[in-house]
Amino acid sequence: MKTTILGVDPGSRITGFGVIETDGEHLTHIRHGVILLDEKASFSIRMGQLAESIRELLAKHRPQYVVLEKIFLGKNADSAFKLGHARGVLMAECVLAGAIIEEYAARQVKKGVTGSGAASKEDVQAVVKNLLGLSQIQKIDTSDALALACYHVFESRKARLMSRAVESWGV
Amino acid sequence: MKTTILGVDPGSRITGFGVIETDGEHLTHIRHGVILLDEKASFSIRMGQLAESIRELLAKHRPQYVVLEKIFLGKNADSAFKLGHARGVLMAECVLAGAIIEEYAARQVKKGVTGSGAASKEDVQAVVKNLLGLSQIQKIDTSDALALACYHVFESRKARLMSRAVESWGV
Repeated sequence: MKTTILGVDPGSRITGFGVIETDGEHLTHIRHGVILLDEKASFSIRMGQLAESIRELLAKHRPQYVVLEKIFLGKNADSAFKLGHARGVLMAECVLAGAIIEEYAARQVKKGVTGSGAASKEDVQAVVKNLLGLSQIQKIDTSDALALACYHVFESRKARLMSRAVESWGV
Repeated sequence: MKTTILGVDPGSRITGFGVIETDGEHLTHIRHGVILLDEKASFSIRMGQLAESIRELLAKHRPQYVVLEKIFLGKNADSAFKLGHARGVLMAECVLAGAIIEEYAARQVKKGVTGSGAASKEDVQAVVKNLLGLSQIQKIDTSDALALACYHVFESRKARLMSRAVESWGV
């Protein structure tokens, strides 16, 4: 059975997303792109636009999993507050569409995908292109979203292999 | 024509709300209460619950205006981040339901409603009870929400009177 995974890198102006499919082993790229919110619109109108765009994505691809970056807050309360709004919209839409939300730390995703937790965004992009057999990924926001989705497959595979090992040892 | 106004004091655990109606002069209390989110559920599930409860409120009362407190961030980025999620959900739902979102600073609302920007929550509650002819308001979160809705009526009335004055002076 195929599982569809949506990776999202949300923001109050630009939200990167990537959709992949997996049979548990192989990764298939379905689509990636960005949701651009109208910079001239008020913040609340932008949140409405974001919810609408996410609803469309969810209705079209029906992901079983939505993968987000776990956030470690810096000192900037203002940007944390704005980002919080966008993440809240995203979470609510996804939960109401029946998706399971997973969060992974950026460092963990970089390490899982490229082998190094200190990899640059360009490194991540290069590996994701390879993993999904893409000739080009236009925006960095999008490759982060695709990396999140791919990493979730690796994590699930690892969890499955471990539970099989436990079974075969009869623990 | 009647205008319905929803005042909301959102939070990631408890959200106070108050619904009032006005003909432009008089205030009528329709309903107030709190949305309690399941503390045992994950944060993202709570955001889904919040969106669902807000959708129900919006569908039932169809407010033309939704009034929120304008937030001045303190130093706690973590709580700003969580509150941001709840506000994002609220904004998106209200915008998609066609409501106009207004924000007023807490101090401005306290001053407008009680006469003093330094009024306590209990003072605000006492005045709101009087304004709306209520015998009791159970929760402080709710009286803040009702105060926001009432204050919006005062502001709109003031704006209308001023535009009339400008017209009659032929400016």
